[in-house]
Amino acid sequence: MDLIDKRAALVAAHAPLVARAIAAVGSRESWSPFHDTPSTKVHGPEKPRAGKAAFEGRLGRPYELGQPGVQGWSGEEVSPYTGEPLGITYPVSEPEALIAAAQAAQGEWAAAVPALRVALCAEIAMRLYDRNFEMTHLIMHTTGQSYTQAFSGSGPNALDRGLEALAHAARAMEAVVPEAEYRRPFGREDVALAKRYTLVPRGIGLVICCASFPTWNAYPAMFASLATGNPVIVKPHPIAVAPMALAVETARAVLTEHGFDPNLVTLAVDTRAEPVAGRIMAHRSVQIIDFTGSPRYGRELETTITGKLLYTETAGVNSVVVESVEDLTAAMRAIARASSLFSAQMCTSPQVIYVPKDGIDTAAGHVSFDAVAQTLVDEIDAIARDPAMAAGIMGAVQGQVSLDVVADLVATAAREGLRVLREAGPYVHPQYPNARTLTPLVLAVEPKHIELYAEERFGPVLFIVAAESGRAAVEEATELARTRGTISCYLYSTDEAFIDQALPLYERAGANLTINLTGAMWINFAAAYSDYHVTGLNPAGNACLTDAAFVASRFRIVQSRRPMRPGA
Amino acid sequence: MDLIDKRAALVAAHAPLVARAIAAVGSRESWSPFHDTPSTKVHGPEKPRAGKAAFEGRLGRPYELGQPGVQGWSGEEVSPYTGEPLGITYPVSEPEALIAAAQAAQGEWAAAVPALRVALCAEIAMRLYDRNFEMTHLIMHTTGQSYTQAFSGSGPNALDRGLEALAHAARAMEAVVPEAEYRRPFGREDVALAKRYTLVPRGIGLVICCASFPTWNAYPAMFASLATGNPVIVKPHPIAVAPMALAVETARAVLTEHGFDPNLVTLAVDTRAEPVAGRIMAHRSVQIIDFTGSPRYGRELETTITGKLLYTETAGVNSVVVESVEDLTAAMRAIARASSLFSAQMCTSPQVIYVPKDGIDTAAGHVSFDAVAQTLVDEIDAIARDPAMAAGIMGAVQGQVSLDVVADLVATAAREGLRVLREAGPYVHPQYPNARTLTPLVLAVEPKHIELYAEERFGPVLFIVAAESGRAAVEEATELARTRGTISCYLYSTDEAFIDQALPLYERAGANLTINLTGAMWINFAAAYSDYHVTGLNPAGNACLTDAAFVASRFRIVQSRRPMRPGA
Repeated sequence: MDLIDKRAALVAAHAPLVARAIAAVGSRESWSPFHDTPSTKVHGPEKPRAGKAAFEGRLGRPYELGQPGVQGWSGEEVSPYTGEPLGITYPVSEPEALIAAAQAAQGEWAAAVPALRVALCAEIAMRLYDRNFEMTHLIMHTTGQSYTQAFSGSGPNALDRGLEALAHAARAMEAVVPEAEYRRPFGREDVALAKRYTLVPRGIGLVICCASFPTWNAYPAMFASLATGNPVIVKPHPIAVAPMALAVETARAVLTEHGFDPNLVTLAVDTRAEPVAGRIMAHRSVQIIDFTGSPRYGRELETTITGKLLYTETAGVNSVVVESVEDLTAAMRAIARASSLFSAQMCTSPQVIYVPKDGIDTAAGHVSFDAVAQTLVDEIDAIARDPAMAAGIMGAVQGQVSLDVVADLVATAAREGLRVLREAGPYVHPQYPNARTLTPLVLAVEPKHIELYAEERFGPVLFIVAAESGRAAVEEATELARTRGTISCYLYSTDEAFIDQALPLYERAGANLTINLTGAMWINFAAAYSDYHVTGLNPAGNACLTDAAFVASRFRIVQSRRPMRPGA
Repeated sequence: MDLIDKRAALVAAHAPLVARAIAAVGSRESWSPFHDTPSTKVHGPEKPRAGKAAFEGRLGRPYELGQPGVQGWSGEEVSPYTGEPLGITYPVSEPEALIAAAQAAQGEWAAAVPALRVALCAEIAMRLYDRNFEMTHLIMHTTGQSYTQAFSGSGPNALDRGLEALAHAARAMEAVVPEAEYRRPFGREDVALAKRYTLVPRGIGLVICCASFPTWNAYPAMFASLATGNPVIVKPHPIAVAPMALAVETARAVLTEHGFDPNLVTLAVDTRAEPVAGRIMAHRSVQIIDFTGSPRYGRELETTITGKLLYTETAGVNSVVVESVEDLTAAMRAIARASSLFSAQMCTSPQVIYVPKDGIDTAAGHVSFDAVAQTLVDEIDAIARDPAMAAGIMGAVQGQVSLDVVADLVATAAREGLRVLREAGPYVHPQYPNARTLTPLVLAVEPKHIELYAEERFGPVLFIVAAESGRAAVEEATELARTRGTISCYLYSTDEAFIDQALPLYERAGANLTINLTGAMWINFAAAYSDYHVTGLNPAGNACLTDAAFVASRFRIVQSRRPMRPGA
């Protein structure tokens, strides 16, 4: 099959997938082309084995990507599960060489029809799904995510988010008709013009990935930029390079196979000692910056970058308000699970739990503040006590910094005489005895301690705040959301009038809210196509990964017009 | 009729109009609900008379708007046609009072359904059309536009552009489904969630208007912000307040009639001595800035504003490349008309005309550079010599500054020994003998004079550049577009291969291109719904007034989700 046929076949092959994704973006129903379980019942026994073997084959070796401008090799990754360096080294390319290569590649990519670019992105997603068992181990041993979460959250769920952004990009480009006929009389003359509207990409996109959950934000940014015609330079966090190396390798292979320059997607490897993002984004040709990471660096970008597109997701303080519940155990289990998941290293992890100081109503009668708090602690204990469950839910702690955060809070609690409702401590991982683990610290606090809990504490810690009332709790939670940022808020109440009063406050704070959710679904699970992520209305970031605003400015429209030939 | 019925009736009344506008935005065909001629055959004899009387009734009197925080009255307008002050004074409100009033108004406006906000904007447009003869005189006597251009360009054509932006906003909001049901199994549990997606406006919008063509950019910005739920503060240029006062007055009346707070739309009047825009945009609640005006101030905003939406249209250097033509006279007439229209005070006015130094091919044979230039001069003379035609096309020069620009160039030309092909000079306006008029200066230059012609000269001046070749002309024209900015470029060539080679260069420069257009339509006419305006790819501005990118970020999406009731 020649190249033209191959490209056409790819467009045809993925057109139904893209159309289905666009439909899901419209209806916001549950949909995915992927299975988000690693079960061998779905995948058979061979793929998991092969994925693990592929991962093991990478350890201690250079990860060859065939990139330009390679000046040396570097690798700083240490497995949170084994405490050992992975020993994988990555090509360190000169930033200027990556930019020059992207510039050389971008003309042909810009000239490709949007449907082809979209199909190539879909193909990259499908290939990544195919390699997801390998990805699972790379994610585990860089971020500390558990096996099942690494498989699902960093695999299909992230790919879904990427396809969702791709669907938005496809929809935005399809909305611009490529040609039009314009006919109207001017005075006594009938004017007929043929008009052509060309989508012109904005420029090189820089995708700066976070350390703990790199693929989930990177895929939407990569696909949104690529589909709209922009080359992409991926800048992984130096402690979690491997997942993005696999993503970049896969993208480069798909591009090459279809006759495009692989340098449309490159990896910019740096070290913590010598960061390179600033140098890349300062370049005139780099016109789009997608950033996921710390609020501090995010804020710096948000207050200094001008004349370029900047999309940020940083972090905030996620709260739960417990005003009243039907079933106390079910509600506390839901919160305990969300707070324990990946040891609270997620942007959706709850950190502050508001419970009225005089207790709450439940279907089984009134329950005191202490009893609510104890039920939550019990539910965390139930996870922490069961090593298999703890391993599956909590995984490992990526960095020493999170242990330090918790240790600092323990010291602060002692100093300030705070009640420690649950002490933090490691659990012994069944497969990895050297894993860096930590079960959540739970502190009882009061509103006067707000400066203690009103900033993101990146690690397994929960503050249970004895609020004056449910109403006061909602007011403080939403004020916190508005001023400190939030990505997910949670509310439990059996009082519909209370919920109705609370909703506008959350809306004004730009806080996405999950109400009264218990049961099998993680309350902090954000479903692609259905759940919006960052609202852009508070300091947790300026961009939703998957809405029209995320894609609409990545391309511009240039037109030409001329008289139609007479009689046309 | 009570308020609820009145609002419902308005939505029903304008739904077909909005749907039709959305269809036109999709097809980009020629369409308008308005007549863009002031002819009494269309409007009857009474409306023009009443409009003129309304204008005359405003002279020398305060323009009452019922605004909050009025600290005094101010008016600096001088008619370019009479040289006399208009004597209209406007309420000068404290910026903080306008912001506070907008904040007070915005909750109810945000809570209104998008379709109602869209319908109210459509109603404002219809009312403005109804008052367009009054507007025509206000435009004439502040900007200097001719009667017919003031009627059409600042009336229906501008309202069309506003409705076009409104259609984009309506389409973007409609694309977000307000509710969804989400059902999927998690483990053995079937989860069913009801999800709600709320459009949350971004914040107060500041619309900074230019002096010479205020309504054309203001309407899209006003309607885009209002429709998406944001209050709007309109900051007119102090020498052209009246048109925006009429627009704000009309908007406030429509809002009041339909039970909304009129302070959703206010006028921020300032003076050249004490500008107020900076104070307004510094306020935290002001989240959107739409700026039309000088490249200098625009550049300052583009390089300093962070954390807010900023949409700019400034200016650039528009060029015409004449490589070859079918009919020399027709082509030169088209250029002469565009260059004479409103004395070249338009963002689409050509300034630089490239003609190969060895002449060009025409259907009638080869023609020398000098003959091409002389034909252009002759066509300008034909307009300038006929006072009625000059009055209709050239109108008046708004500010002394434009006369100074031309005088400076005359001096420079003498100093540098440039060939003056046509001297600038006033024409005598048939109705207004004191009108500030100036017919175009035409200079012959060479590429070595590039610094002379490569920046915007805001006034009636044309540079005819003796280019090495057509190819060299396109290269320089597009390089100029890329580096200095452009809003409209023009190309004449009978060589299809030449055009095919030129097109990608214009596209890469983000230059909208009109090819081989002659005849009754102004070559610099930009048709709403069909022509895109600023591309955002060069220094002439970062925003197209009427695309998805112009509207998509003016609102954000906040969601809530909760379990559906069993059995639902």
